[in-house]
Amino acid sequence: MSSSRFLINGITDGAISPLDRGFAYGDGIFRTLRVLQGQPQTWAAHYAKLASDSARLGLTCPEASIWREEIASLFADKGDGVAKLMLTRGIGERGYAATDNGVTRVVMRSPLSGYPQKNADEGIRVHLCTIRLAHQPLLAGIKHLNRLENVLARQEWSDPNISEGILLDQDNLVIEGVMSNIFVRSGKILITPNLERCGVAGITRQRILEIAPSLGLLPSVAPLSLPDLMRADEVLMCNSLYGAWQVVDFNGRTWPLGQLAARLRQILQE
Amino acid sequence: MSSSRFLINGITDGAISPLDRGFAYGDGIFRTLRVLQGQPQTWAAHYAKLASDSARLGLTCPEASIWREEIASLFADKGDGVAKLMLTRGIGERGYAATDNGVTRVVMRSPLSGYPQKNADEGIRVHLCTIRLAHQPLLAGIKHLNRLENVLARQEWSDPNISEGILLDQDNLVIEGVMSNIFVRSGKILITPNLERCGVAGITRQRILEIAPSLGLLPSVAPLSLPDLMRADEVLMCNSLYGAWQVVDFNGRTWPLGQLAARLRQILQE
Repeated sequence: MSSSRFLINGITDGAISPLDRGFAYGDGIFRTLRVLQGQPQTWAAHYAKLASDSARLGLTCPEASIWREEIASLFADKGDGVAKLMLTRGIGERGYAATDNGVTRVVMRSPLSGYPQKNADEGIRVHLCTIRLAHQPLLAGIKHLNRLENVLARQEWSDPNISEGILLDQDNLVIEGVMSNIFVRSGKILITPNLERCGVAGITRQRILEIAPSLGLLPSVAPLSLPDLMRADEVLMCNSLYGAWQVVDFNGRTWPLGQLAARLRQILQE
Repeated sequence: MSSSRFLINGITDGAISPLDRGFAYGDGIFRTLRVLQGQPQTWAAHYAKLASDSARLGLTCPEASIWREEIASLFADKGDGVAKLMLTRGIGERGYAATDNGVTRVVMRSPLSGYPQKNADEGIRVHLCTIRLAHQPLLAGIKHLNRLENVLARQEWSDPNISEGILLDQDNLVIEGVMSNIFVRSGKILITPNLERCGVAGITRQRILEIAPSLGLLPSVAPLSLPDLMRADEVLMCNSLYGAWQVVDFNGRTWPLGQLAARLRQILQE
């Protein structure tokens, strides 16, 4: 059924207990990253985010070397693929109070995502989601395992020509995509929404904020309204797997294909 | 490590794949119920809630007879305990889009919770949680597997003399307990908060709403402010495992022990 392989606490093809708090409560975090020729891409940034998300939830994050060894073990063929890393608060008995049974660590290998090449070449059509993201500052920014909002959002469309959905929050501010972060360029200003109340702060978003000045752009983390997005010169979505795509069709407007997404993909891959 | 036993899709001591969407996204629901002498208590109400929560998330809920047979199998000794039922969207590959691989059904048996008898006899001390529940109408009321807010709330106290925490929402309205619903009595009026924007609508809450008129009380589902709670004649918490407890010490106020919680426990057990 599955083309994925995995290690659970270092055990090949292990399994998760139904008592695992990751299963019972979504009490954990995860990351997905590209692996090329056996090498996890942008590893330092991914590990830093794994460690900081762990700290936010009070999880003890295993050392980088442990993750690296397990990724290397699953990619011993020096192949390409996606590594998904997960960390949960481990086995618990019933009840929300945490017991100290140690964390559960999962490293999974899957094939590289089969995103259509035309998403990069021609830009993407995007759905405006009706679900509104809830405000929870204590969880905002964390890539945690409570992802029902994303699941519900992804159910809103089935048209295969639509590649992403844009999520607003309960104040109708633009926050992110279902599986992506978002940027809008207006002249020289490159804005991405602040994620202090909801959303996932991805590492590609962070990298683009750092790259922007070298492209002559002024990066800004700020509230972003839907009307501001609709007036922007370019709208881009990004994540660690596909890099950056330009939005060319969204909410009744089309945009001509610009150069920025292609330029970002190139720099992100260097 | 564990005193629990379980069936996963009917398989004794099976395990959960890390690809299960319950683990990956918290994409599922659960219930906990008391089993006495092998009989699940208030089964019809629990199954109705399981079915309606399933429908809210678009999960296909197995027939009641399947759950009943599996509970009977785990309680073949006609013993007492807690049954936890879980239902997830099954195995998925990476990505939020649901695939149709069927649901994952978990039935677990654990010992009856060891709540102190004095919680019933003397009432409970309760913590006012600082975390505020986020508003998500599409998930409100459902007992789903995205429970990080409850996990964070439960981390706020470690004093074993505190038995529960009361959660407010982002408008500072009273919503529920970490593992309970809440009622306040003011004269003949028995109010429980409405749960249209957040919270879990438990079946004991529903049963108390139905029982109230027989006790000469006027049940009401309405917004409840913290000042209204502090002024109430009695504050009660409830769930399927312990029935009802009175709050006697909360947020700087004490209440004398009344009769209502004991009366409700008696009726709930009949």
